[in-house]
Parts: sequence; C-alpha cells; structure tokens
Amino acid sequence: MKRPFFQNLETLNCNESLPLDEVIKQLAFNEQGLIPVITQDAESKEVLMLAWMNQTALQQTLDTGCMTYWSRSRNEIWVKGVTSGNYQTLKSMCFDCDGDAVLCLVTQQGAACHTERKNCFYIEAQKLNNRAVVTSSIP
Amino acid sequence: MKRPFFQNLETLNCNESLPLDEVIKQLAFNEQGLIPVITQDAESKEVLMLAWMNQTALQQTLDTGCMTYWSRSRNEIWVKGVTSGNYQTLKSMCFDCDGDAVLCLVTQQGAACHTERKNCFYIEAQKLNNRAVVTSSIP
Repeated sequence: MKRPFFQNLETLNCNESLPLDEVIKQLAFNEQGLIPVITQDAESKEVLMLAWMNQTALQQTLDTGCMTYWSRSRNEIWVKGVTSGNYQTLKSMCFDCDGDAVLCLVTQQGAACHTERKNCFYIEAQKLNNRAVVTSSIP
Repeated sequence: MKRPFFQNLETLNCNESLPLDEVIKQLAFNEQGLIPVITQDAESKEVLMLAWMNQTALQQTLDTGCMTYWSRSRNEIWVKGVTSGNYQTLKSMCFDCDGDAVLCLVTQQGAACHTERKNCFYIEAQKLNNRAVVTSSIP
C-alpha cells in the first residue's frame, strides 16, 4: 500500500534520517492496531517466525532490546521467552518502504517455535507430489 | 493463534506428510482472504519483502513457480515483475506452525523493492540516537 509519508522517504539517500518517533507514529498499524513482524536470526539469517506488534510492544522492544509482541490468542503483551526461557535479543529493527512491515534481526536463545523446533516454518509445500511435508521433528 | 488442524500437525515427524490441498484449505486467510508472505532470497538469505496472497495467488505461485501476490492497493492478482521485469522464481514455500504465515525462498531478478533498492527494509530504527535512518539509496 503506497502511503504519502513513506513515499516521501523513498528519495532519501543512505544515512539520511528522520526522528524515530515520527516514523513509528506513521507505521501502518492495522484495524486491530497491529503490524506484522518478521523475526530473523542475525547470524544464520534463518527466518524464525512471523508475529505481530502493537505500538506499545514495538516501543517496548526498542526500549528493552528484548523482543516483545502482541499475542493475538491471549490478547496481551507477550515478552517472547518469558514462559519458555527462549528470549530473543534485538540486534536491529527495520521498517519497509510502505511502513507496513517490520524486520527484526535477533539473537535467539533456544528454539523460536513453541514446538521446540528451531523455527516455525517446518511445513513445506511440495507441488510435485502434492504433499505438505514436515521438515523437522520435535527435538 | 493456535488452531486445531495445525496443532495436530505439530507432533508429526520429519518427512511425514499430508495432502497439500488439504493443508492449503486450512491456512488462516484473514477476513480479506489474505495471508502474509515473507519473501527471502534463496541464496543470500536476505529478507526481500513482505506481501500478501489470497488462495488463488498462492495456488498460482505453486502452479507457475512465479511469485504471485494479491495487490492490496490495486485490489488484484499481482504477478511480481510483470511491469518491472523483476520476477521472482519460487524455490520453496513453507507454512508456519499455526498456518497463518508463509515463507517463500526465491531467486530474485533485479531489485525486489519498487524503489529499485535490493530489498524493501531500508529504514532502520536507531534507538540510541532516536532516528530512523535510511540504509540504502535508490541506485
């Protein structure tokens, strides 16, 4: 979705900047006040999970350096790892060209997935044999 | 969001499988019939973009091997690259543990971003100096 605020940012050169608060305010939080967040392992570059943040969770993530999402099932702020111990430390946070997605590079303690698999994307669509194949077991 | 169909898949072991059509039908397309898709460069592992697919776009992507999204701004099926020439060839497609996100590894021709930058995530939140910094220029 093209949005004027972010369209104005397109022509900025490398290292040009704006006040962070101003940009956060302009992010495209949806009708539920949420924005999708891709969490990627900073070292292996493995995509670990996709989750959602509201503005409070996003701000808290930046303030604490500890990945904090909005749990849509529990309807509450969710500090990843607070029950499992599998915390994620923020290395960098980037917004996309339209301001409607966030990419966070993290250091993952333990497993990212609640199944204890390393990452959440373990069901592969295999078109050739028309199967959806599980690519890793619970450890 | 925990969902019974995908909860049942959690305990499957590596290489166990289900009919692909059955799994696709169970994906958590939202109220607009869309599911978020992370597109990652298969070689560099760079996350290129986040976009959305409806069931038709997802099926078309699998059938053609050519990344096909739903354009929320134009409200139509969007074969990525059809205007820019920057096609994306599908290498693998995976679903996550909750069936509410898709990860596609692709071979990207040219730039992924409409600004002609390599990827869409070029605005970095720098908490220390409270700035949002552009990390690459339009080539």
